[in-house]
Amino acid sequence: MKIKKYLLALLLGSSAFLMAGSLGAQDMPVAEAAEAVEAVADAIPFDEAYAAFMETPGAAFFTISNLWLLISAALVFIMHLGFATVESGLGQSKNTVNILFKNVFIISMGLISYALWGFNAMYPGFAEGSAGVFAMGSWFDVTASVDLMTSEYADYTWYTDFIFQAMFAATAATIVSGAVAERVKLSSFMIFATLLVTFAYPITGSWQWGGGWLSARGFYDFAGSSLVHGFGGFAALACALILGPRAGKYVDGRIKPILGHSMPLATIGVFLLFLGWFGFNGGSVLNADPYLVSLVFCTTALAAAGGGLGAIFTSWVFLKKPDLSMGLNGILAGLVGITAGADSIMPFWAIITGLIAGILVVFSIIFFDKIKIDDPVGAISVHGVCGIFGTLAVALFSDAAGFGIQLIGTLSVGAFAFIFSMIVFGLLKVTIGVRVSPEEEAEGLDIGEHGQEAYPDFANSSR
Amino acid sequence: MKIKKYLLALLLGSSAFLMAGSLGAQDMPVAEAAEAVEAVADAIPFDEAYAAFMETPGAAFFTISNLWLLISAALVFIMHLGFATVESGLGQSKNTVNILFKNVFIISMGLISYALWGFNAMYPGFAEGSAGVFAMGSWFDVTASVDLMTSEYADYTWYTDFIFQAMFAATAATIVSGAVAERVKLSSFMIFATLLVTFAYPITGSWQWGGGWLSARGFYDFAGSSLVHGFGGFAALACALILGPRAGKYVDGRIKPILGHSMPLATIGVFLLFLGWFGFNGGSVLNADPYLVSLVFCTTALAAAGGGLGAIFTSWVFLKKPDLSMGLNGILAGLVGITAGADSIMPFWAIITGLIAGILVVFSIIFFDKIKIDDPVGAISVHGVCGIFGTLAVALFSDAAGFGIQLIGTLSVGAFAFIFSMIVFGLLKVTIGVRVSPEEEAEGLDIGEHGQEAYPDFANSSR
Amino acid sequence: MKIKKYLLALLLGSSAFLMAGSLGAQDMPVAEAAEAVEAVADAIPFDEAYAAFMETPGAAFFTISNLWLLISAALVFIMHLGFATVESGLGQSKNTVNILFKNVFIISMGLISYALWGFNAMYPGFAEGSAGVFAMGSWFDVTASVDLMTSEYADYTWYTDFIFQAMFAATAATIVSGAVAERVKLSSFMIFATLLVTFAYPITGSWQWGGGWLSARGFYDFAGSSLVHGFGGFAALACALILGPRAGKYVDGRIKPILGHSMPLATIGVFLLFLGWFGFNGGSVLNADPYLVSLVFCTTALAAAGGGLGAIFTSWVFLKKPDLSMGLNGILAGLVGITAGADSIMPFWAIITGLIAGILVVFSIIFFDKIKIDDPVGAISVHGVCGIFGTLAVALFSDAAGFGIQLIGTLSVGAFAFIFSMIVFGLLKVTIGVRVSPEEEAEGLDIGEHGQEAYPDFANSSR
Repeated sequence: MKIKKYLLALLLGSSAFLMAGSLGAQDMPVAEAAEAVEAVADAIPFDEAYAAFMETPGAAFFTISNLWLLISAALVFIMHLGFATVESGLGQSKNTVNILFKNVFIISMGLISYALWGFNAMYPGFAEGSAGVFAMGSWFDVTASVDLMTSEYADYTWYTDFIFQAMFAATAATIVSGAVAERVKLSSFMIFATLLVTFAYPITGSWQWGGGWLSARGFYDFAGSSLVHGFGGFAALACALILGPRAGKYVDGRIKPILGHSMPLATIGVFLLFLGWFGFNGGSVLNADPYLVSLVFCTTALAAAGGGLGAIFTSWVFLKKPDLSMGLNGILAGLVGITAGADSIMPFWAIITGLIAGILVVFSIIFFDKIKIDDPVGAISVHGVCGIFGTLAVALFSDAAGFGIQLIGTLSVGAFAFIFSMIVFGLLKVTIGVRVSPEEEAEGLDIGEHGQEAYPDFANSSR
Repeated sequence: MKIKKYLLALLLGSSAFLMAGSLGAQDMPVAEAAEAVEAVADAIPFDEAYAAFMETPGAAFFTISNLWLLISAALVFIMHLGFATVESGLGQSKNTVNILFKNVFIISMGLISYALWGFNAMYPGFAEGSAGVFAMGSWFDVTASVDLMTSEYADYTWYTDFIFQAMFAATAATIVSGAVAERVKLSSFMIFATLLVTFAYPITGSWQWGGGWLSARGFYDFAGSSLVHGFGGFAALACALILGPRAGKYVDGRIKPILGHSMPLATIGVFLLFLGWFGFNGGSVLNADPYLVSLVFCTTALAAAGGGLGAIFTSWVFLKKPDLSMGLNGILAGLVGITAGADSIMPFWAIITGLIAGILVVFSIIFFDKIKIDDPVGAISVHGVCGIFGTLAVALFSDAAGFGIQLIGTLSVGAFAFIFSMIVFGLLKVTIGVRVSPEEEAEGLDIGEHGQEAYPDFANSSR
Repeated sequence: MKIKKYLLALLLGSSAFLMAGSLGAQDMPVAEAAEAVEAVADAIPFDEAYAAFMETPGAAFFTISNLWLLISAALVFIMHLGFATVESGLGQSKNTVNILFKNVFIISMGLISYALWGFNAMYPGFAEGSAGVFAMGSWFDVTASVDLMTSEYADYTWYTDFIFQAMFAATAATIVSGAVAERVKLSSFMIFATLLVTFAYPITGSWQWGGGWLSARGFYDFAGSSLVHGFGGFAALACALILGPRAGKYVDGRIKPILGHSMPLATIGVFLLFLGWFGFNGGSVLNADPYLVSLVFCTTALAAAGGGLGAIFTSWVFLKKPDLSMGLNGILAGLVGITAGADSIMPFWAIITGLIAGILVVFSIIFFDKIKIDDPVGAISVHGVCGIFGTLAVALFSDAAGFGIQLIGTLSVGAFAFIFSMIVFGLLKVTIGVRVSPEEEAEGLDIGEHGQEAYPDFANSSR
């Protein structure tokens, strides 16, 4: 089988990345500082230290910043509803329960697995001395919160840090969910998504945000064009390759469009994602600095708008009709595109970044269809391709980073996600299988996997 | 008729509770303090006092806290859309307009009746000297706001207090709405919901949050597992008992599932409720304290996640299929479960609390179906049963309160809601009636009560 | 043709308004102050000045206020999803893609055109010396941000000001979108909406918020009952007049109701608009002042509730059935009604304002149907009629402004929007046409304009 060829080739390539990741994660400069603060913190009871801190002049900014990050976490949370609705809206009605179920599972599993493992794996500086398998002990310890209260590290509490990062982590698996929709075996996807969020995401995340090797080399990825979206997009590509296209999608060399069953649902999804992105990017400032947060709001919104216009007019010219799905994906493309440089690309160039991403996503979706990689929602193009482009845009439209390191960084992250997914999803394929039976696919996964219809009261069209 | 037996038995029982409630509401320790501050406030014009206060060092924390409570009020508001969508999604398409209408009515009526009566009834300390029937005068009086500005009581204005509490109040009636769906007579429900929100909710609320008898005895209900959810759940139980099951639900000793007509709508509802809960619990800190608010965000999200996983795997094992409705109700169960102890149960135990609630809700839904109490959306299990469990969880998983008082408190609140509903809804039954005709039930309440279809363009399935 | 008569009459009338507008925009008192501050700012590098500012005691309030305005911008953003869903829900399923597409286009186009032109045209004081056609240069210039940092003008950054105002600007065109739905030619609408947002909206906006002639004469429009909603409503009236009613709406002197295809979608829209209004009105305080922002939250919510109840009971009495669509439009009517006086009308009178608006909107919708002006979603009544009423309510229920200037102001803004739309939409009619062919209208604009169905999986009812 073809998959064995993949596995062999990729097993070799992956080890280098895994090593680089773990090396980067070891020599944290933060770890030493953490020790020093902890020594002080141990001497004072938490309640006293906290009360004293809240009397200092810095407490106001700390409190505002902390609140902003919590609100941002809530905004990123609502992106999960955005993904659930955009993916189910662009899928067929017979697979709707299945898609919604996957999203309900991912947010539930993602939060808990990130608490139990991911958070401490990704930010080892904060979990110093407790990097065991069940690292829960460390972020339970109330006195440990004092570290962050001193605001030597951050303008928010440990709990805030956790919940904000946890909402991000679950996003990566959700991206994959769209690309494998309408044919993936539920149990296999659940195992894969759990492993991806728990083990793979924190590794590439720590390369940059944990202070690892990319961070040391001047890589710049403000809120995760590569670390979240590129990561998810390339994991999606691997899974789509292994799964193969939906039955009836590519027949006799022709591409048969499989239409989304509810455009209002898809539109709700994209607007909710746009809304959530104000927290995704705006919260990534990591405090409430008025200049930076407001700049990020402007660049984020203008890039989304540019992406929408870029995709609308590109689809109008090349597909003859102004296409709603393309407009929606254009907005997402613009948002993914600006994510790496939302704090460093100035507003006019944010419009340009969005425009290019919006044009790019149309051609990318057409391209993947041409080479018969079936991606029901365009996740590979939106998150993978535009994630790479966004990372490079930092070098093109700002002076925050050089082109070389941006290219190395985004490809490393993408390659790691791709390789990890190839191995894990490939192993699932050869063991328990990753695809539902042709009969179940034809009947729909809602009945097959859940014994439940999404819309029992409505008559189906003859389609 | 059976209902007369209920009425007799319950009229006697209720008087004790009503007395306890009104007694508790009388001897407010806050009332005296309020008088003292008011005396000062009367001497200074509001504008001057306010301007002076805003120059003090405490103004920053006051401003942040006030803003957080307002944002929380907005988040709790969106829970009303959550309820509207989850209830209509889990109902049949022919009753959709009716369910939506009830939710539009409840938020409108709830806000106004709480302004005119409930707020002043629930927090008599704040409305001292103005506890008349039309108590509006008091919270209109601008000088009165000075009380709260001194921050001797609170970190927010009187207006903020009102709007945050008003959003809570309307929630109680919304919970009932789900349990009586698809068969309740609209006008009767509107009268019942108005009486419940206006008169009943503030009474039990004042027992704890108004400084009443439960509060004096060490009861702990942080954001309302009992005071809001248990209250609503037990009112729902009474109404479901009086109404009886939907036609065709229990036939020849068999349970016939009546499927929800739109799982995307139900899923949107649950995610919006999850989002709103960050304000429901997070705002209940009553200021922007970084440590507490961030802890509450973590416990709330982790309990929801635990509830989701608990229900998903329980339903998978016992119902053979991974059930989306159960997963959704599991998330809500986890949220209700953590509400009483969101600031005192530590994160790991929040996961456990959520898990148990998620498992519990599956068995509870099955149980109520077995004993033929028909609850179309599972409101009694989610809010009533998990509301009790959540109140007890405070004693089990934190040291904020003892098990005895928690048990007494949650049962008292539940009993009061149950008895009040039995009496009022029972009186409505014997007077104007509470149930639509069998013909209207079969045809759907949308046509019967509103003369309007929810989906006129779509063909019905033959179901 | 009738349209020519309109054009002639209105061209003459419009010039007076245009002149008044441009005059008002010229003599900005702010402009001089801006010059002074800029002189100072030029001498200090931005980074230094900013860092110094953030150390001052005023920085905390500045930071909180700035954050609140950004969150408000996000809330106003979600109103665009509210409009998209309420408009498509109240339309027929065959025109759903088209309505959604228009909303996706408007937010994208609106943000960018407001960046390139509108913002600088509307607030010339801030863009002094850069009021060219492509005025982007000015709000790019980072040093310019120092102006706003000194907090002599404002409690937020230039970027914050832009994004908050940009979200407002796009709203005006969205209002029109609803009134012209189900028959307007897409390309013509896109051109019209672009011209309206880019050129017309900033002119009337600058009359008041830019410090123009209305502002100088004591006009009071807190958050835009006239400047946003009245403006949009009267533009909608002009377009509906020019377009004519939908085919089959008024046949043989009888009014045939054309039902909305999804009441859940419409309800989602209204709740999201209600939510967004907390930012629309609450953010219009332009800082985080605890007293004012909390007052605005109360008046906004209570007016919405009053509007809901007013419309529910009016429709129940006059239309015999409690109508959900009317209840939904009543909530919107209450919100539009309170918008002009949300900070000056006290809560009890906010309820009354909402109640009147809710009653008014029912009669207004019936009236426009009687005179055969077809407005599928009731936009003219909700935004136009209640926009006027709300502006007058400031004089009736508060002492913030006199009745005379309120009447002059609201009629001037409405007249300008009406005349501008008559001219521009009229010119589009006589050139490229504004209406789709009868065949396309019958088949639906989704297929005709986009070649795409909104719900391909569902069978149509025979309607």
